[in-house]
Amino acid sequence: MTKVKLFLTDVDGCLTDGGLYYSAEDHVMKRFCVYDGMGMVRLQKIGIPCGILTSETSGIVSKRAELLHLQYLRLGVGSQVNTSSKTKRQAAQEICDELGITLAEVCFVGDDINDIDLLSAVGLPCCPPNARPEVQAIPNIYKLQTPGGQGAIREICDLILAGRMNN
Amino acid sequence: MTKVKLFLTDVDGCLTDGGLYYSAEDHVMKRFCVYDGMGMVRLQKIGIPCGILTSETSGIVSKRAELLHLQYLRLGVGSQVNTSSKTKRQAAQEICDELGITLAEVCFVGDDINDIDLLSAVGLPCCPPNARPEVQAIPNIYKLQTPGGQGAIREICDLILAGRMNN
Amino acid sequence: MTKVKLFLTDVDGCLTDGGLYYSAEDHVMKRFCVYDGMGMVRLQKIGIPCGILTSETSGIVSKRAELLHLQYLRLGVGSQVNTSSKTKRQAAQEICDELGITLAEVCFVGDDINDIDLLSAVGLPCCPPNARPEVQAIPNIYKLQTPGGQGAIREICDLILAGRMNN
Amino acid sequence: MTKVKLFLTDVDGCLTDGGLYYSAEDHVMKRFCVYDGMGMVRLQKIGIPCGILTSETSGIVSKRAELLHLQYLRLGVGSQVNTSSKTKRQAAQEICDELGITLAEVCFVGDDINDIDLLSAVGLPCCPPNARPEVQAIPNIYKLQTPGGQGAIREICDLILAGRMNN
Repeated sequence: MTKVKLFLTDVDGCLTDGGLYYSAEDHVMKRFCVYDGMGMVRLQKIGIPCGILTSETSGIVSKRAELLHLQYLRLGVGSQVNTSSKTKRQAAQEICDELGITLAEVCFVGDDINDIDLLSAVGLPCCPPNARPEVQAIPNIYKLQTPGGQGAIREICDLILAGRMNN
Repeated sequence: MTKVKLFLTDVDGCLTDGGLYYSAEDHVMKRFCVYDGMGMVRLQKIGIPCGILTSETSGIVSKRAELLHLQYLRLGVGSQVNTSSKTKRQAAQEICDELGITLAEVCFVGDDINDIDLLSAVGLPCCPPNARPEVQAIPNIYKLQTPGGQGAIREICDLILAGRMNN
Repeated sequence: MTKVKLFLTDVDGCLTDGGLYYSAEDHVMKRFCVYDGMGMVRLQKIGIPCGILTSETSGIVSKRAELLHLQYLRLGVGSQVNTSSKTKRQAAQEICDELGITLAEVCFVGDDINDIDLLSAVGLPCCPPNARPEVQAIPNIYKLQTPGGQGAIREICDLILAGRMNN
Repeated sequence: MTKVKLFLTDVDGCLTDGGLYYSAEDHVMKRFCVYDGMGMVRLQKIGIPCGILTSETSGIVSKRAELLHLQYLRLGVGSQVNTSSKTKRQAAQEICDELGITLAEVCFVGDDINDIDLLSAVGLPCCPPNARPEVQAIPNIYKLQTPGGQGAIREICDLILAGRMNN
């Protein structure tokens, strides 16, 4: 692929292990992984903006994005419940337009069926080993070895940082 | 079995890994799995109502059911502590009567001894690999490969959606 | 051994996986397992009282004991920090005196070095596979197959209920 | 190496499994392991002070250090975000100066790239099996068998207590 100029990822199952912690009041917590944070911080340091695309609208995701100073955050995209929501592909295209780049220059990590439209369109589609079978079956998808929530995002960030995904 | 017309599941050990998070004040959290939510949302979209049967009375379960728009929720059934509670089989029969269907048209996922009465009566009984030995020994039970809390419910939902459990 | 007349267990690493969840305010949560609760509830139903012995003084443990209606709860015993605390053996002996039984009629599950004095004295000493090496080396200790927090206590409860530990 | 006179460890990935629990309000929890606490308490009892060095500034870490009565706590060192922060090596050197010892008498456990400067300088550098590849490649690093958050720190504490790391 061409050089990665934008890094995007889904949240549940990618930045987390898919766990949703509920109390009687609400969906209250997610568990992120320290290794992923270090990876995205380093990508942004060398000039590759990072962002999150999720069908959720939870403030939990906003908080994680804020603490990592992520440049892009799109909540409520690709929702299976709210059928009037934008797809993840539409949301990513808007960011590309803003940056003056194409989807061919994007790396995106996703794991479920609502990620398939965007995974099929970007230059470097990736999924963790816990991704749904339909996602793993996408042609040319790069299969990460590290499960979501245990450093899957760090794995691909480090490969990009080492210049090993550009050729 | 005949076509599945109702999907029911236990909570602890099926929709979760059996973990109960306690603070000094109360049993405060459970950890659900994002993949299961997508599965039940899709089942309901094609007209198969979904519901939860649990011996617990915790508001945590109500909150998860609410966010997924599940059509049926029966708390406090099959309790080993409150011996005047309904059994899970009685609760499921009531829902069937309401829908005008029979237990033979029900898929139910359970993992512990208080699920055995209902598992023995439905058309498509299922259990996750972490189910108690007595549950795994039920004749004709369908043994899921995915542990509770990691997508066990999604596994069976996807099989039903693909039409592979109807014949 | 003779018939088990009292069931006692440590908490961290036995009723939990050893995880201690901290917030900025306090040690706020532990993760228990639904299977263990069912085991102790059933033991108490057939007349075998159950109890908890822990070096901790956290209200988290009290809450779990309360919801399961456990008959005995001794907090702050066997502490390595508070050297004036009772040992677990002393605490268990007091309960035995109250019940008019001997330590030879007790089943105790422990996993760390401060459990060794009591494990060496009871009739049925048990440990989960995650127990410290010094605990696993205790002569005649019964080694459970299920890790702490995943149903270790249920495993031994079910063996006692099935009459398989009495001879 | 010479006798260990100071024990220092990183937090995320060493005292924890790297998990960061977020709510909509903040990074609210970390999960520590009971076995590690017992290890450091015992080290301090025989006169080896223990401390924590972390790039984080979270009160969660302070709380855990407080409950274990750890003698040293340095927050915000080795940060990749705040580039004016001290390195972990500088922080450790200051503690050594205070104690009148050298880095050759220090055991330090770390797992990520911001731990490399200090790991390369101490007498007994250690890492858990989940450490980043660059950390595992440090010459002469002692590779622990137990993952972070499951007792990695206890493993090395017990080896030091048994006198097996001094020669």
